Parts: sequence; structure tokens; C-alpha cells
Amino acid sequence: MKAIVSIIMGSTSDLPVMEKAAAFLNEMEIPFEMLALSAHRTPEAVEQFAGEAEKRGLKVIIAAAGMAAHLCGVIASMTALPVIGVPVNASLDGMDALLSIVQMPPGIPVATVGINGALNSAILAVQILAIHDDVLKHKLSVYRESLKTKIVKASDDLKKVSYPYKTN
Amino acid sequence: MKAIVSIIMGSTSDLPVMEKAAAFLNEMEIPFEMLALSAHRTPEAVEQFAGEAEKRGLKVIIAAAGMAAHLCGVIASMTALPVIGVPVNASLDGMDALLSIVQMPPGIPVATVGINGALNSAILAVQILAIHDDVLKHKLSVYRESLKTKIVKASDDLKKVSYPYKTN
Amino acid sequence: MKAIVSIIMGSTSDLPVMEKAAAFLNEMEIPFEMLALSAHRTPEAVEQFAGEAEKRGLKVIIAAAGMAAHLCGVIASMTALPVIGVPVNASLDGMDALLSIVQMPPGIPVATVGINGALNSAILAVQILAIHDDVLKHKLSVYRESLKTKIVKASDDLKKVSYPYKTN
Amino acid sequence: MKAIVSIIMGSTSDLPVMEKAAAFLNEMEIPFEMLALSAHRTPEAVEQFAGEAEKRGLKVIIAAAGMAAHLCGVIASMTALPVIGVPVNASLDGMDALLSIVQMPPGIPVATVGINGALNSAILAVQILAIHDDVLKHKLSVYRESLKTKIVKASDDLKKVSYPYKTN
Amino acid sequence: MKAIVSIIMGSTSDLPVMEKAAAFLNEMEIPFEMLALSAHRTPEAVEQFAGEAEKRGLKVIIAAAGMAAHLCGVIASMTALPVIGVPVNASLDGMDALLSIVQMPPGIPVATVGINGALNSAILAVQILAIHDDVLKHKLSVYRESLKTKIVKASDDLKKVSYPYKTN
Amino acid sequence: MKAIVSIIMGSTSDLPVMEKAAAFLNEMEIPFEMLALSAHRTPEAVEQFAGEAEKRGLKVIIAAAGMAAHLCGVIASMTALPVIGVPVNASLDGMDALLSIVQMPPGIPVATVGINGALNSAILAVQILAIHDDVLKHKLSVYRESLKTKIVKASDDLKKVSYPYKTN
Amino acid sequence: MKAIVSIIMGSTSDLPVMEKAAAFLNEMEIPFEMLALSAHRTPEAVEQFAGEAEKRGLKVIIAAAGMAAHLCGVIASMTALPVIGVPVNASLDGMDALLSIVQMPPGIPVATVGINGALNSAILAVQILAIHDDVLKHKLSVYRESLKTKIVKASDDLKKVSYPYKTN
Amino acid sequence: MKAIVSIIMGSTSDLPVMEKAAAFLNEMEIPFEMLALSAHRTPEAVEQFAGEAEKRGLKVIIAAAGMAAHLCGVIASMTALPVIGVPVNASLDGMDALLSIVQMPPGIPVATVGINGALNSAILAVQILAIHDDVLKHKLSVYRESLKTKIVKASDDLKKVSYPYKTN
Repeated sequence: MKAIVSIIMGSTSDLPVMEKAAAFLNEMEIPFEMLALSAHRTPEAVEQFAGEAEKRGLKVIIAAAGMAAHLCGVIASMTALPVIGVPVNASLDGMDALLSIVQMPPGIPVATVGINGALNSAILAVQILAIHDDVLKHKLSVYRESLKTKIVKASDDLKKVSYPYKTN
Repeated sequence: MKAIVSIIMGSTSDLPVMEKAAAFLNEMEIPFEMLALSAHRTPEAVEQFAGEAEKRGLKVIIAAAGMAAHLCGVIASMTALPVIGVPVNASLDGMDALLSIVQMPPGIPVATVGINGALNSAILAVQILAIHDDVLKHKLSVYRESLKTKIVKASDDLKKVSYPYKTN
Repeated sequence: MKAIVSIIMGSTSDLPVMEKAAAFLNEMEIPFEMLALSAHRTPEAVEQFAGEAEKRGLKVIIAAAGMAAHLCGVIASMTALPVIGVPVNASLDGMDALLSIVQMPPGIPVATVGINGALNSAILAVQILAIHDDVLKHKLSVYRESLKTKIVKASDDLKKVSYPYKTN
Repeated sequence: MKAIVSIIMGSTSDLPVMEKAAAFLNEMEIPFEMLALSAHRTPEAVEQFAGEAEKRGLKVIIAAAGMAAHLCGVIASMTALPVIGVPVNASLDGMDALLSIVQMPPGIPVATVGINGALNSAILAVQILAIHDDVLKHKLSVYRESLKTKIVKASDDLKKVSYPYKTN
Repeated sequence: MKAIVSIIMGSTSDLPVMEKAAAFLNEMEIPFEMLALSAHRTPEAVEQFAGEAEKRGLKVIIAAAGMAAHLCGVIASMTALPVIGVPVNASLDGMDALLSIVQMPPGIPVATVGINGALNSAILAVQILAIHDDVLKHKLSVYRESLKTKIVKASDDLKKVSYPYKTN
Repeated sequence: MKAIVSIIMGSTSDLPVMEKAAAFLNEMEIPFEMLALSAHRTPEAVEQFAGEAEKRGLKVIIAAAGMAAHLCGVIASMTALPVIGVPVNASLDGMDALLSIVQMPPGIPVATVGINGALNSAILAVQILAIHDDVLKHKLSVYRESLKTKIVKASDDLKKVSYPYKTN
Repeated sequence: MKAIVSIIMGSTSDLPVMEKAAAFLNEMEIPFEMLALSAHRTPEAVEQFAGEAEKRGLKVIIAAAGMAAHLCGVIASMTALPVIGVPVNASLDGMDALLSIVQMPPGIPVATVGINGALNSAILAVQILAIHDDVLKHKLSVYRESLKTKIVKASDDLKKVSYPYKTN
Repeated sequence: MKAIVSIIMGSTSDLPVMEKAAAFLNEMEIPFEMLALSAHRTPEAVEQFAGEAEKRGLKVIIAAAGMAAHLCGVIASMTALPVIGVPVNASLDGMDALLSIVQMPPGIPVATVGINGALNSAILAVQILAIHDDVLKHKLSVYRESLKTKIVKASDDLKKVSYPYKTN
């Protein structure tokens, strides 16, 4: 079983944020890998990873980084695979990471999700993979249905909150 | 007794913020309801709610949302009832929610109050209802008078703070 | 014919922004007035205006202001009528005006629309008035329908844009 | 020839920004369509579009919007196809649109590119399509090579800039 | 002994911030008073205060407020005495209060100090009073000298921090 | 006739902004001087100016600066006279200058006015001087009255704007 | 004559900003080169440049970039030479470029100057080179003296501005 | 052994941030000193320090400051030695300090590192010193290699995180 999605982060301190991405890929039964790479500290390793990504069978790359977050853009410049960027809040409420990832110059896009948006990065990866995979499409549709359950449950809980003038 | 104000939120995690709105409507003896809806997870439920709102006798809708807060604008696009938007601070100090709610394009306004401004959303709802309701107008005026008490009390407390050169 | 909506602004330099509000109220056949008042330069006139607003038959007040935009909040503190605030972009892209208007403390809400959102302020005023006015409700619904025409027209225009691989 | 990418925008005023996306898809020989839809003015049309998107053969949706930019998130909530969001600078330097698009809540991602990043939205769409299309993969690789030419040309131009102490 | 400086705040919750202003005025032996007033909840009390300020012998007014902080500007519009504004951090890191206070329109200035800058507001008040008061000028100069002691002490502490390659 | 107010700026490029301060002081018949000084380029000249300011009879100093605007704070650190700071918009909409001036650490305040707020800096200087000068107090009061004229004129102009449903 | 400073930019569109850096190095008689490189479009060329920089005799590298400005950090990760970063204003007033350059993670600093601060980048390069070069130190000192001339000239110009109550 | 790097800060409260700079210089066996100075409270001491810096044998100055952080720019204006500025987060997430340090006007640069970037300030100082010091260059290269170890360790840790569908 070869990984088709790679989750890249700069250090294990990003793991508490990114494990939601891992859990979702696992739930969807997508073979994936997790790696620590740094655009600034291990540029050669990043280059090697990006250069081999397609050959190794990867289809989508998820990269998370904080501060002046160059990892996502640097990987995107070295592979034509879609790169999903997750800005990690390490300073300035994550605004520095968001701008460093999303504001890529013309030619090299990064598919950016919200600050600390690990779950959404994995869902987006699955949406991309599902274009040509009807089984995955079905799993995704089941998952999307399940999102509604939480809201219905919330509405039920709200109904139990009682005030004299509350009517539901 | 049918609800004339609806308080909508995306999850029960917004309840600690929004219960001030419920408490105020209750205090003013306005029949209201509380619902959980999500622009993104239950779009059909939002559509159904908005489509029936007027027929069900609702006069004003209060909607609270955080992050890329689409709920208020989406409801406003589906009903001509006034929609009051409460930006919830879930990230970026609530600035993302504020801009997502207040910066509506021409044609579909949302009456936006401050970040986490649940109490003010309910007061605004009452102000709108009071235009044609003299009893409510009177209650509102009593409430507004009561706001002054807190300040007078504060001034009295400040007078008790003692410094040799303090003269009151 | 007595005005039921008042449009307040700080100077005639706000007129190019605010005339969209006037035009919409006029189109909806709502009797309205336009006044220049300043929270800082004519505080007594503001006080007199706010004190008499309800007695004069006004139902909704629209107030526009830029920079440290106090006008809306100051009027709202002096009348229980709903006050709609329009942040005018006079500096800092209008962010100073937006925060000065929307971030009202608990007790005194201002129904804030987007930066330079004059049209939306008038639509919101009409939505509020329409709660108890079926004729107005109908006019509003016609107007809301007309918004779609522009989009349909835009879609038609986009269809005329021709590229070899464009399919519509 | 059926469209596999759809470019959605709110009005023809977004066309000058978005035509770079059209031109790139055309250059890559991807069948595409262009539509005007508005989350707020034509919610039913948006719903219909999103509901039929997959059945019509679309694989990727590009949506551009400004201000409180709900279009991208609303479409993403109604289809499991990947949605690429382009924040359009219509106010606040585009920061309101960026946050309204990228800060989606957990469950419904939008693949966001930079402010006014139309070209990058199309490149990202092609990268996604190229995962299962070797011909497209090749075209993309040729395009990516061509990006370097501009830089090489720029370097040559810089060499012609002459100063006594300049050595290249 | 009549107060010549008045410290105004919106509630006792501002006291922990503002007591540094009181302590400094006390240390400088300036007769002062402390009052709670609200631009929005007790506008008449604000008006009365501002209208009598000069006659009562006040020379400088210090006003602290948070959020859409109108108190300082409203007082400044009602008296020609210098008004020193202290933005209180109650939301958005105090940026909303700062902009609501400092960005006053032409004609009505507020002498703004930093966010939560209570001590500086009192020092500024003393600097203004000292223009025509040589005894105060002397006290101020003694205070300003004392500021240096803290730095000298800090430098001494830093010298005690020991590293093999540290030379002082 | 010796200057009692000094207007300091970093270059003649600030003159178009600052001449409103000069014009107002002139109108109030306050003897003043204008100087160019730079905290960074002529630190010794700044030091000499600040050291002699009080002895030369100056009562208030107005200092304008843009970008990392250190001039106001540096002068304030070298004289106990009140220093009024004017943030000049030279980059980032003037936000860098505003924060560099207003966010002074405890001990050394700068009385900050709004971005490009030259007129307000001069009015504030006059308010400070008027504390002990009844003639000036009177002139200021006349000026403040004149501010209302502009609003009254604006209101008259607005009355002339005609719409069928406009009632004033 | 071998270059000891390299000025790197992403395209010739940065030349109008960066030519002030070239002119200053030329004035200081520092041999320099100008190159166009892109972290995203020509990553191999960047790697080759950085890998050979030291061997080719370069001492300091100046790199300018806009938007998600990765060039400076990427070069800094590949050479131990000091890298000076110039954020170019291409969007968001240059705030995205500033944060992408200055907020480097621990281990790989970039010596950042202000937005569009090309001249300052060259002065900083010269300051670094002058540490071990007394001739350069002297030239720098002459330049720094010349900065004062402009201020003195400005002060003279300000003296010529005439108002009845202006005293210099 | 004379200091060749000086670490300046405004108070001992900055020590927890800045001790990473001290530790790194110590590790690199660079003789350094630590001083407390304040641009605002001890301007004469700052002037004396800057005036003697070069004569005392200093080569690089690191200065840390928060809020309206003038220390770095003021020192840079008084010595031609390279000054490295560290914005300290004391308010507004450190954005005020960052802008006050990095946005220096033309002529006087400060080599700015990230918010609370003490370690990077010391690394940058060493990079500057290493230009003419091969032993230091070697130590720096060893340090830079060691940065990779942390990433490799992180990657190993990530491999141990186990999910059924995780492949590494």
C-alpha cells in the first residue's frame, strides 16, 4: 500500500494541529504518510521529496507551516501536484502564515485553507481524489451527511434550553 | 404563543455568547425561538427556515456565526425580514467574522452589531419591534433608564476610592 | 407628508456616498429627510434632533460618518429608534469608521452596514418598515426580484465572451 | 464538448480579473464555461448550479467574489466537487474577501488562492485535473518551464543596466 | 481643595487600568477627582459634566474608554479644555478603542496616549499643568530623573547574568 | 515676539500636511516657529532643540513624522514640555506612524492626534495654552462656534437636494 | 573586479524600486551584480546561485520580493552569508511581503528593511562591509553627514514660509 | 577579552526573550556584553553608548524593544555599525514594535528580525562577523547542520505515529 497523500509539517509541535488531517484520511481509508520537512533547515530534503513525489505515487500534498510559512510555496514550485497549504497559528494569530501561503505570485498556486484548518485540508485532498474515484465520492458524501447530524443535535439541545418566553 | 424573533446559531458552542440575547428577549417578554443552523452543513435547512420565516410569523431574525460567517448573509438573501448579524470571535479576534457579515454587497444588508454583541442584537431586535408597539417602547425605555444605574453605582464606587489628593 | 426616515450625515462631502440611500427611499416612496449634523461640532443640534425624532414621527434613522465616527452611536444613545450606521471611507480604508460604529458597548446597538454601504442602509430601513406594511413588503419583494436581472444579464454577457474551449 | 471546469463570478465587473483564468484554461485546451451567479441575489440559481454540477460533468469549480464573499463557500456546501476561491479586491484591499473565503469552518473547505489570483486559480484547476491525465500533465510541465523564460529574460535585461561598479 | 484634573471612565472595570493615573496625580499632589460617565448610557450626565468642567476649576480631563470609545471625543466636543484619551483594551487588542479616540475629525482633537496608557495620561496632564507652575515643573523633573534609576538598576542586573563569553 | 509653539517636521514634503497647523496658530495670533529636524539624520540638532526649548520660551511642541516615526517620542524624552504628535501618512495608510507615535512606553507620553491631523494638533496646542489665557480662551470659543456654521450650511445645501419623497 | 554584493529581484518590474540600491552601491564604489531569480519559478537557479555565492566572493546578498515573498528566506536557507530582505509593495500595501520576509522561524534570519526600502538595504550592506574596511567606513561617514544637509536645507526653506505670527 | 557584540534591551523584563541571543553568542564563543538602555528614559546614556561603540571595539549591535520601539532606530542614527532590531511583543501582538523598527526612513536602516526573534538576531550577528572570520564561518556551518537534526528527529517521531492507513 503506497501513500497517495503526504502530510508535511515543520516540526512535531505542529502535530496537535495536523492530526485531524491524519485522522480524516485514515477514516476515508486513504493511504497517507506524515513527514517533517523544513523549507529553511532542510532545503535539500524538501527538494528531494518534491522531485520524487509524483514518481512515488503521491497525488496530493498537504503542507502545514507557521510564521513566514514558505514550505507550501517551495514544494509547489518543485512539483506539479496540487499542494494544499495549512497556515499554522504560531504568531500574529496566524495572519503571517496565511499571507505567506495564500499570496503566491502568478504561476505557482497553493490551495490554501483556513488558519489551523487541518481537517479541511484533508477533506479538500479527498475531494480532489474523489473526482476519479466513485467509492471515495460515496464515502465523502456519507461524511458530508454526517456533518448535519451535529447541527440537528445542537438544535435539539437548544430546544431544551428553557425560558418562559421561549417557544421551542 | 408564536415566536416573533428567531435566534440562529451554528452550534451549541455559540450558546454561552448568545444566551444574553435570549435572556434579554425573555426579559422584554418577546416570544422567541432558538435554532441551530449552518449555512455550510445544512444549506437546505437554512433555505427552508428562511423561506417559511415570514409565514410562521417571525418579524426579526438574529443570526450568530464565526470565522467565514456566511449564515447571516445567506439567510438575508432568502427572506426580506430584517436580519441582525452577530460576529462570533472564533479566530482572528473575530475580525474575520465581522468582515464576513458586515461587508455585504449592495442589495442584501445585514444589520451587524459588534463582535460577540449578543445583548445588543436582542436590544436592536426590540427597538425594531417597538416601532409599532407602545408597550414594548415603554419597556425598552425602562431598560434604557436602568443602564444609567450601573454608571451611577460605578461613580459612587469610584468616590470611595481614597487618595490624599482625591477630592471626591 | 411627514418624514419617517431621516438620513443624517456630517457634511455635504458625504452626499456622493449617501445619495444612493436617498434614491432608494424615494424609489420605495418612503417620505424621508436629509440633514447634516455633527456629533462633535453641533452636539446640541444632535441632542435636539434625537430628542424630538420619535415625536416628529420618524421610525428609522440612517447616520453616516467617517474616521472616529461617533455620530451613529451618539444618536443611538439619545433615542430608542433603530439607528442604522454607515461607515464612510475617509481614512484607513474606512476601517476606523467601521470599528467606531459597530463596536458599540452593551446596551446601545447600532445596526451597522458595510463601508460606504449607503444603498444597503436604505434597504435595511425599508425591511424594518415593511414588517408592518404589506404594500412596502410587496415593493421590496419586487426590488429583490430585480436584483436577479442584473445577474442574469451578466451571465448572458459572459456567454458572449468567446474562447475556442469555452462551451457556453 | 462538455465543460469540465466552471468559472463563476458575481458580475461582469469581475471579468477583467477573471479573464486570465479563462485564457489559461483555453491555452490548456480544457473545456470550460463562464457563469454569473450571486450567493445573495440568485440563491436558487446557485443551488441549482451546485446541485447539477457533478451530473453535468464538471470536475472543478472556480468561484470569484469580493467583499463578504460568500459565493465560494456556499457552492462548496452544496457540491462535493473541489471549489477554488478567488478573493476579488473590491474593498479593504481584498482582505474582507480573503477572510470570507479562506476561513471556512471545519467540514467545508474552499481551496483559496491569492487576492485577484485568477491565473493561479486556473493553474490549480489544471493541476487537479492533471492527476489523472498524462497529456495535461505534460502541457502543465511545458507551461511551468515557460515561467522560467520570463526570469531568464529579466536577468538578461538586468545585465544591460549599466553602472561603473556593476560587474554583470 | 478643588480638583483641577478629572479622571473619567465608563465603569469600575476600568479602574485596574486607570488607578495608575490616580496614583501619579496623587504623587504629584494634584487635586483630582474620579467619575464614571458613559457617552452612551448617561449622555445628559456627560453633557452636564462637560458644560460645568471649566467653571468648576478643572484644567485637564482624562477620559478612558474601550470598544467604540466615544466618551473622549464627546467630552472634547462639549468643552474647550484639553481632553486626554486613554484607549482601553476591551476587544481587538484595543485597536477599536485607539482608532475611535485618535481619529477625531478636524476641529475637535483628543490628545491620545497608548492603549491602556493610564500612567502616561496622567504624566501628560501634569506636563500641561506644569507649563505655568514652576513647582510642578520641578516635581516632574524629579520624576523624570527617577525613570533613569530603573534602567540603571536593570543594567546592573544584566551585568550579573553570567556567561563564559559575556564581558560585562 | 518669541515663539511659544514650535512646529517640527522631518522634511519640506510634510509642509502640505502641516501648513494647516501653521495657519491655525497664525489665525489665533500665537507666535510660532517652523523647523525641520530628523530624529535619525540630525540627532544632535534634535537634542539641542529639545534641551533649549523651555529656556527659549516654548510652551508646546508639535512634531510630525511618518513611517517609523521616532521624532515625537525622541523630543518628548528630552523635554518636559507637552509634545503633540502628528502621524503622517507616508506608507501603510499611516498606521506605522500612528503606532510609532502613540504607543510610547510608560513615562514619556506623546499627545497623539489622528493621521495627517495637522489642524487638530494646532487646536490642541491652543487648548493647552488657553488654560491660563482668557483672551485665547475666547478666541478658541469663537472658532469652535464657527465650526457649527459649516454644518448649518451643509444642512441648508442638503435641503436643496430634491426628490419627490424628500420632505425637507 | 568581482561582485561582493548581489542584488536579486524577481522581475524587471522590481527595478524601479531596487535601482536606488544599485545607485548607492555604485556611489560607494562597491562592485555589485544584479540578477533576476524566483524562488518559485527558478528554484534550481536560486539553489545554484546560493550554493556558489560564497565561493564567487560575494559577502552580502540583497533580495527583493513581493506578495508571499519567499525569495529572501529561501536564499538565506542555502547560504550562511547575510541576506538583506526588501519587502516590495505589490499587494496589501506590502504587508504580505513584510511578514513573509521578517517572520522567519528560528535558525534562518533575514535582515529585513522597510517596505520598498531599497536604499536602506544597500546602506545596510555597506555598513556590514565597512566593519572591516576603513576606507568604506569613511565613505559611509561622509554619506551620513550628507543626510543632514537635506534637513538643514528643509529648515531653511521652512524659514522662508511666511505668516504674520511666524517668528523664524 | 573585549565585547564585539552588544545586546541592548530596555528592561530586565526583556531578558526572558533576549537570553536566547546571549546563549547563542556564548555558544559561538563571541565576546559580548548585555546592557539596559532606553531611548526615552536615558537618551544621554544611549548617545554615549552609540558614540563610543565603534571605538570600544564593537562590531554589531543587537537592540530589542517593544511598543513604540525607538531604541533600535535611535542607536542606528548615532553609529554606522550595523544595528539588528528585535521587536518585542509587549502589545498588539508585537505589530507596533515591528513597524516602529522596520519602517525606518531612507538613510538609516535597522536590520530587523521577527517578533521576539532573539535567536535569529544573534545568528545574523554571527553571519555578519563570519564574513571575515573563517573559524566562525565553520562554527556557523556546524550550527546550521545541527538544525537539520531536529527535523530528522521530528520525521522519525512522526513515523511512530500509527494509523491503519498510514504508510510510513
